[in-house]
Amino acid sequence: MTEGTDRICAFSDGVFAIACTLLILEVRLPPGVEGSLWSALVALWPSYLAFAFSFFVILVTWTTHHDLMRLVRAPDPPARLAHRGTLLYVTFLPFPTAVLAEHLGGPQMSTAVAFYSGTFVFGSAAFNLLVAALERGHLFRPGVEETVRKIRRGYRITFVTYVAATLIALVAPWLSLAINVAMRVHLLRIPYRPAPEVDTRARRLAP
Amino acid sequence: MTEGTDRICAFSDGVFAIACTLLILEVRLPPGVEGSLWSALVALWPSYLAFAFSFFVILVTWTTHHDLMRLVRAPDPPARLAHRGTLLYVTFLPFPTAVLAEHLGGPQMSTAVAFYSGTFVFGSAAFNLLVAALERGHLFRPGVEETVRKIRRGYRITFVTYVAATLIALVAPWLSLAINVAMRVHLLRIPYRPAPEVDTRARRLAP
Amino acid sequence: MTEGTDRICAFSDGVFAIACTLLILEVRLPPGVEGSLWSALVALWPSYLAFAFSFFVILVTWTTHHDLMRLVRAPDPPARLAHRGTLLYVTFLPFPTAVLAEHLGGPQMSTAVAFYSGTFVFGSAAFNLLVAALERGHLFRPGVEETVRKIRRGYRITFVTYVAATLIALVAPWLSLAINVAMRVHLLRIPYRPAPEVDTRARRLAP
Amino acid sequence: MTEGTDRICAFSDGVFAIACTLLILEVRLPPGVEGSLWSALVALWPSYLAFAFSFFVILVTWTTHHDLMRLVRAPDPPARLAHRGTLLYVTFLPFPTAVLAEHLGGPQMSTAVAFYSGTFVFGSAAFNLLVAALERGHLFRPGVEETVRKIRRGYRITFVTYVAATLIALVAPWLSLAINVAMRVHLLRIPYRPAPEVDTRARRLAP
Repeated sequence: MTEGTDRICAFSDGVFAIACTLLILEVRLPPGVEGSLWSALVALWPSYLAFAFSFFVILVTWTTHHDLMRLVRAPDPPARLAHRGTLLYVTFLPFPTAVLAEHLGGPQMSTAVAFYSGTFVFGSAAFNLLVAALERGHLFRPGVEETVRKIRRGYRITFVTYVAATLIALVAPWLSLAINVAMRVHLLRIPYRPAPEVDTRARRLAP
Repeated sequence: MTEGTDRICAFSDGVFAIACTLLILEVRLPPGVEGSLWSALVALWPSYLAFAFSFFVILVTWTTHHDLMRLVRAPDPPARLAHRGTLLYVTFLPFPTAVLAEHLGGPQMSTAVAFYSGTFVFGSAAFNLLVAALERGHLFRPGVEETVRKIRRGYRITFVTYVAATLIALVAPWLSLAINVAMRVHLLRIPYRPAPEVDTRARRLAP
Repeated sequence: MTEGTDRICAFSDGVFAIACTLLILEVRLPPGVEGSLWSALVALWPSYLAFAFSFFVILVTWTTHHDLMRLVRAPDPPARLAHRGTLLYVTFLPFPTAVLAEHLGGPQMSTAVAFYSGTFVFGSAAFNLLVAALERGHLFRPGVEETVRKIRRGYRITFVTYVAATLIALVAPWLSLAINVAMRVHLLRIPYRPAPEVDTRARRLAP
Repeated sequence: MTEGTDRICAFSDGVFAIACTLLILEVRLPPGVEGSLWSALVALWPSYLAFAFSFFVILVTWTTHHDLMRLVRAPDPPARLAHRGTLLYVTFLPFPTAVLAEHLGGPQMSTAVAFYSGTFVFGSAAFNLLVAALERGHLFRPGVEETVRKIRRGYRITFVTYVAATLIALVAPWLSLAINVAMRVHLLRIPYRPAPEVDTRARRLAP
């Protein structure tokens, strides 16, 4: 039954890889630039920043997704639906990134950052639903209970943080972005590696 | 000979993953927005709706495609041609999605929904031809006759439904969209899992 | 050493899948359409035709590429360079397709078809160079000599046909397109399946 | 533990394949061309040149990346971060390519080439950091010390060359491009194949 997981992971990898590569299509010089090209390139800093940030968000999400799916035997229909929600979020991300790039440092930055951060609320909700569906269906591999418990708690904290960051964006957009960055650094540190038992088995199988 | 199927499936996975990720490129703010960014983002609801719907259509089609191909030994030239037709449909979908997004709720919505729904008629025709070609070439794995019979019937009902939805679009476009949504929910419920024999074999092979 | 071929094939599969999916981005309604949406959709027929034709060209090229690479042990540097040329051709194809779509049936159709057909001359040259490099490096699997001889002859005929089609485009563009279509139908019929020996081995390995 | 490397390589392959295929989206005829289509197609030579060059850069980088990762057991967090930097560089490349295409042969070519070449400085820095992280973490396979030593030296030379090419671009942009081309030809010649021991093992495993 791991066939299903493998295929879903390969498909998801494709979606993640495409989504992060498409981001660059939103970085473009305004048509008909007059004056110095150098100034025009420098003036694009919000686009670079938004591009780099969303790029790292997608890669961190990919790692998270990867580490989570390694713990799963096979998804059932509700888990598949939740999983599609996570992919919908990743696929959608280039749009709020473009909105952010256009308004970073501008008068409507609050709205742009709230919209951007709100996308993460949606994405985090999808991941929380996915874990809930996997738990309800008893679809995790045996021996990873402790890891799953940590992931679940980590995801809940993440969700609350994104909600807070979205609200904070309305009054302090730069602070909101900083919280988002800090969250990703934190996410990469959640130790949701497989439990020792699984690790041992993997080590035995390795050449 | 499963090598051929594997490679075709991997290629198709790529096409499905790219097609659903490209959809977001059609969601964009009109250039030179005056006034509130918030209103502009809210005014894009037809784009979000069209994006989300086509995204789920592609994912459902991917699942359908995946489940169907698992039953196949190897495609022959006619089956390959029909299979290319299914990929052509998936690849084409971003265009009717963009048309739908632009006209949802507008005065020419009937035309846009008919065009959108008509694309599914074409896609469904390709899937029906694929099953017919696989049957004529005796290319299904042994022991899946009952499943194939159910799939064939399911695909025929789907085809007729899309034709009906396309015609209905001309007078009641929202009803047509509702039928399309209902169809997808139904499609996910067709039990075209492998026949028991195959399942057993898979369970024996699993660790 | 087949590891090298596997990885190159997987990478190439990605390029083929993306190239054929990107084609749809060139199909778009002119901005600010007045009048009937239906007429505007119908007026896009050159885009649909160019899209469908290039889509099938890429899929036929993918099959050709796939069948050829199955006969190869491992590419050496010159073969890799020629292989990159074939990918360059596939990657470039969306541009001449867009040019063709814009000028099909227009006053400058001759130029557009010559440019489009000329792209196939370049692509075919790359495939001929690839076969030559593989032969010079003795990189084909043993037992496929007869198949390779047929492929080589088929590729040479293809090359000459594309050169002819490009020249014909200057005076009779529709005839040139018809020759291109006929060529693809023919290409799919070249029997460059593996030699019997290889086939037998594959059949023995299959369950 | 090679599972991690496999998955990362598959993901990276996707990013490389998409990045090089997206390049063509920047090659487009100016809207509303008057006069000869042929002249317009010829006038696009800077776009063709920039497209072809970046295409080969991405393919050379892919080969480099592939050959490097074959020597790695498994990346640790710092190596993963550096690896993400290399992907960021590949993903970013379509933008400087578009800038180059627009300004090749124009009055601001120096700036465009410096920006383009500067992107390679960033990319090369990421690859140097990756090798450093892999060495610090003792993450290379046993028996490849000599190969790694050659790679490290090659990467350092590459880095210095790109810095020089970027500075040279400010006064002699064509020379800068020529250095960049020469560098890639050189890169393909670095003999960072696995050490003999590894090769032998691979040959033993091969059928």
